[in-house]
Amino acid sequence: MPQVDLLECFDNPQPPQREYVIEHVAEEFTSLCPKTGHPDFGTVSLRYAPVDKCVELKSLKLYYQSFRNEGIFYEAVTNRIADDLARAMNPRWLVVTTHWKGRGGIRSTIRVEIGAVPPHERTR
Amino acid sequence: MPQVDLLECFDNPQPPQREYVIEHVAEEFTSLCPKTGHPDFGTVSLRYAPVDKCVELKSLKLYYQSFRNEGIFYEAVTNRIADDLARAMNPRWLVVTTHWKGRGGIRSTIRVEIGAVPPHERTR
Amino acid sequence: MPQVDLLECFDNPQPPQREYVIEHVAEEFTSLCPKTGHPDFGTVSLRYAPVDKCVELKSLKLYYQSFRNEGIFYEAVTNRIADDLARAMNPRWLVVTTHWKGRGGIRSTIRVEIGAVPPHERTR
Amino acid sequence: MPQVDLLECFDNPQPPQREYVIEHVAEEFTSLCPKTGHPDFGTVSLRYAPVDKCVELKSLKLYYQSFRNEGIFYEAVTNRIADDLARAMNPRWLVVTTHWKGRGGIRSTIRVEIGAVPPHERTR
Amino acid sequence: MPQVDLLECFDNPQPPQREYVIEHVAEEFTSLCPKTGHPDFGTVSLRYAPVDKCVELKSLKLYYQSFRNEGIFYEAVTNRIADDLARAMNPRWLVVTTHWKGRGGIRSTIRVEIGAVPPHERTR
Amino acid sequence: MPQVDLLECFDNPQPPQREYVIEHVAEEFTSLCPKTGHPDFGTVSLRYAPVDKCVELKSLKLYYQSFRNEGIFYEAVTNRIADDLARAMNPRWLVVTTHWKGRGGIRSTIRVEIGAVPPHERTR
Amino acid sequence: MPQVDLLECFDNPQPPQREYVIEHVAEEFTSLCPKTGHPDFGTVSLRYAPVDKCVELKSLKLYYQSFRNEGIFYEAVTNRIADDLARAMNPRWLVVTTHWKGRGGIRSTIRVEIGAVPPHERTR
Amino acid sequence: MPQVDLLECFDNPQPPQREYVIEHVAEEFTSLCPKTGHPDFGTVSLRYAPVDKCVELKSLKLYYQSFRNEGIFYEAVTNRIADDLARAMNPRWLVVTTHWKGRGGIRSTIRVEIGAVPPHERTR
Amino acid sequence: MPQVDLLECFDNPQPPQREYVIEHVAEEFTSLCPKTGHPDFGTVSLRYAPVDKCVELKSLKLYYQSFRNEGIFYEAVTNRIADDLARAMNPRWLVVTTHWKGRGGIRSTIRVEIGAVPPHERTR
Amino acid sequence: MPQVDLLECFDNPQPPQREYVIEHVAEEFTSLCPKTGHPDFGTVSLRYAPVDKCVELKSLKLYYQSFRNEGIFYEAVTNRIADDLARAMNPRWLVVTTHWKGRGGIRSTIRVEIGAVPPHERTR
Repeated sequence: MPQVDLLECFDNPQPPQREYVIEHVAEEFTSLCPKTGHPDFGTVSLRYAPVDKCVELKSLKLYYQSFRNEGIFYEAVTNRIADDLARAMNPRWLVVTTHWKGRGGIRSTIRVEIGAVPPHERTR
Repeated sequence: MPQVDLLECFDNPQPPQREYVIEHVAEEFTSLCPKTGHPDFGTVSLRYAPVDKCVELKSLKLYYQSFRNEGIFYEAVTNRIADDLARAMNPRWLVVTTHWKGRGGIRSTIRVEIGAVPPHERTR
Repeated sequence: MPQVDLLECFDNPQPPQREYVIEHVAEEFTSLCPKTGHPDFGTVSLRYAPVDKCVELKSLKLYYQSFRNEGIFYEAVTNRIADDLARAMNPRWLVVTTHWKGRGGIRSTIRVEIGAVPPHERTR
Repeated sequence: MPQVDLLECFDNPQPPQREYVIEHVAEEFTSLCPKTGHPDFGTVSLRYAPVDKCVELKSLKLYYQSFRNEGIFYEAVTNRIADDLARAMNPRWLVVTTHWKGRGGIRSTIRVEIGAVPPHERTR
Repeated sequence: MPQVDLLECFDNPQPPQREYVIEHVAEEFTSLCPKTGHPDFGTVSLRYAPVDKCVELKSLKLYYQSFRNEGIFYEAVTNRIADDLARAMNPRWLVVTTHWKGRGGIRSTIRVEIGAVPPHERTR
Repeated sequence: MPQVDLLECFDNPQPPQREYVIEHVAEEFTSLCPKTGHPDFGTVSLRYAPVDKCVELKSLKLYYQSFRNEGIFYEAVTNRIADDLARAMNPRWLVVTTHWKGRGGIRSTIRVEIGAVPPHERTR
Repeated sequence: MPQVDLLECFDNPQPPQREYVIEHVAEEFTSLCPKTGHPDFGTVSLRYAPVDKCVELKSLKLYYQSFRNEGIFYEAVTNRIADDLARAMNPRWLVVTTHWKGRGGIRSTIRVEIGAVPPHERTR
Repeated sequence: MPQVDLLECFDNPQPPQREYVIEHVAEEFTSLCPKTGHPDFGTVSLRYAPVDKCVELKSLKLYYQSFRNEGIFYEAVTNRIADDLARAMNPRWLVVTTHWKGRGGIRSTIRVEIGAVPPHERTR
Repeated sequence: MPQVDLLECFDNPQPPQREYVIEHVAEEFTSLCPKTGHPDFGTVSLRYAPVDKCVELKSLKLYYQSFRNEGIFYEAVTNRIADDLARAMNPRWLVVTTHWKGRGGIRSTIRVEIGAVPPHERTR
Repeated sequence: MPQVDLLECFDNPQPPQREYVIEHVAEEFTSLCPKTGHPDFGTVSLRYAPVDKCVELKSLKLYYQSFRNEGIFYEAVTNRIADDLARAMNPRWLVVTTHWKGRGGIRSTIRVEIGAVPPHERTR
């Protein structure tokens, strides 16, 4: 079972009004297809603008690993991760994107975005 | 004959007000040129923001396969797929892009977009 | 001599209010430098939003081939192709971009755009 | 200890109203993880629009080297470099982006932006 | 010494109200570092929207070659080329970007833009 | 059914003692999986040293197209193509390699070689 | 536990004296580090020359999946797979190569080869 | 008509016993298909070990350009170029390789080699 | 000081007569230039065929890290690592290759090989 | 004038019987075409097996820079560098390869090899 309590946060080392963006790309994500039981392999990208909290990197890795033997659809994984991280950090803005290697010749990408895009991000 | 009834949908696991984007890229699409009968090979990319329905992945694959022995022009394939999927899912926004390997030294791309681009997608 | 009458159009299979974009990339274009007589090699990309007419692919190829032994500058080729195609199809929007392999260590690109960029294209 | 006094500036050779952008990408940055003591390897990109001062390239390199044996988190390195450079040059606009090679299968990127994005940069 | 009088222009073959963009990328640029005397190697990209004049390609190449044994900083080269070309052609809009291979492990890019970005360029 | 009689040959324009190598790579091959009926997509590469006969390019394309609706395993396709071409041309040496896009996350390659590798090919 | 009895073979559709080579590349392999319990991700490539038996593709996939929750070292995985496949198929020649994504900044590759390299393979 | 007398040679600046290898890759070759009259585009690579003569670069370019409006098959072009250059230079060893962009979805390569491969080339 | 006693070995899990090859590529190596004191950055690749011992991966990483503040030339680093590892493991065959990012515009590679290349490696 | 006396050597830090290979790739080489006076740009790769002497890296760079304003053909540059370095170091084996960016659409490569290829290099 995905374990949200694995997520640990540390205090944003910057004052909340400093706008900056943090990105963590985990290229080794795996869960199980709830229909067939076969493993799914994907990449999970997290990008966010912190307010008071930042997610700790090792805890993020362990949280992702807790999906390893969970049967869960692409759409659900992505929304679940976004919701869990939004709840844990309460960031100004957050986007979670998952890329899934092909199944039946079709590659899939799911993207969930919460909060208003920071001004600088708009012109990147 | 392309068979629209092959398309199956499942209920969007998120409430309709959650804005998120789903993308499926099928790299193995083939149909026939209606003029010469020779096979065309292409990639079909679907990106959409769901409201109540999401297209089921395996049914999408079978729907694409039903074009295999159909004589149909690039422009028609792309508009047809966009119309069929829009009707089946009634999404907030949808874009279908087809990329065709070169014929006579010319590579082609057709892009059909239905509905208003979601705010987050605009700054991607 | 480039032969504009080689261009053939077919009726847009969609109603004119359907906004969609068609792209054809011809990677094997050659003409002659009007100064030195040496051959120039380039790529010609056409992207347009049709109203009533679409250009037929084989006729486009033959039209491009008619430049083979024509002495003509980069700027003139690109504007000429854009003007000929705009006249033949009368599209909502059209952009012709030519990329030329290096001469004297300099690679060149010319881009001509006619009409207003379609809303969807703006956020691509 | 990172040594901010290593940073040397020279007078912007252009009048302050000339808007232009300077970018320096240092691909060989290393510091230490403050938790484990293991080395971190990354790339530091600086992009800025000068007013009166430009940072001297060799001094920038020595300043970056002064982090070599410093235990410091990704977020802190990036904000610190941005603050030091903003203080030294007082530019119109500045962005510092750090890319870190994977630790535990996760690649990270931190981006800090100070000042208003120049108009030309917005349409790049 | 860089020789601005090497630059030759020809009349824009289009009427001045036709908005189009010309790009020339010179991948073989070399000058000398004014401090150490060591050679610098870079790429010079020019993109502009002409009004009455276009720069002739061979004269541009010779003009660039005239920097070969000149001791001159990155920032100065880039601004100088932009100023010389703006004076010679008086274009609607012009951007000169120089990319410099690494010195001391740092790669640099300088970008100078003169005039208002053409509307089409904004949505490219 | 694959139709071997589609293969047409022309006389080798060189005397048989001239050793040279001809390669044709067809990137758009499709057949059906005999177990599931799902389409397989692959690339077929042919390399050979002719004696008296060369295979005609258009006939090769039509021969490959005749596999389109044939249920046949990877290993059988590859050996069959090699045998048919060896019989049709009787070359000094021939190798057929097929590359298949992933099924169930596994990409496959089959290589069949008939005759002795020409001396020049050995040191390529 | 890795389950060797998952491996199924089918009769080589060619006579045993036909020398040909089959390659299957599985890009989605995962097992566990026996020391830390953390997941390892890698690619497993199998290349072999069959005599009487070929390994069935779906059974190979299921066999690879049976390592998912097994704690096992890189060296042991690779030798074990090679031994299991050699026993199951008794091929003329077989090579198993595993590529492992970086751990602690170090990427690893293990290659086990059994039997004499076929003559054609030598000059590939 | 291809004009062999365009080929000019200069004396090998090295004594004939010095073994070295010269390669010229022309990426902009075009001729006509003798069947359809449509243009073919390809790359011509020449690699050789000189004895007394080297081919002059500009004359090689003009010789290649003389095929521009010649109807000639892939196999014939390649053998003809190899024969013409072998006759003009009488080198120790020579290989001509042509790569042709796809026609009907098939890319082709022809390779003609004359003389014994130099010892160093064997271990390259 | 590089610390050879950091290297730990474990018993080869295979009998010594099993020929197989292990490769570890460390992309994050840094030492100091003994002349200028500036940091050098490189990649260290180790490939070997074990007899009785294999090097433990974490100890290899720590051993490499012990060069971090050592002033040592490229040639010396490479030979020293090869000698240390050969002494620690006594393998059948070993090759150490270091790749160094450019200094003064020159990229360097040093390769040291000890023992006879295994037969399979020869035909890789 | 190219200045061979710029080349400095240091004593091979290894005993002469240790076979190892050193490679230096200089990507920023420029000389002049003796015919037209236009600059040539290329890459010079040196690979050698030392006996008693190794070439010092900074002196190699200065030696290469001394060709900057020299009119000299591709073939002559390459042989001259090989001869100068062979004389200065008297290595067991040496290969100099120059790659030249296209002139008139033709890219060139010259390779000069002196001495017997070391056994390990043969199987690389």
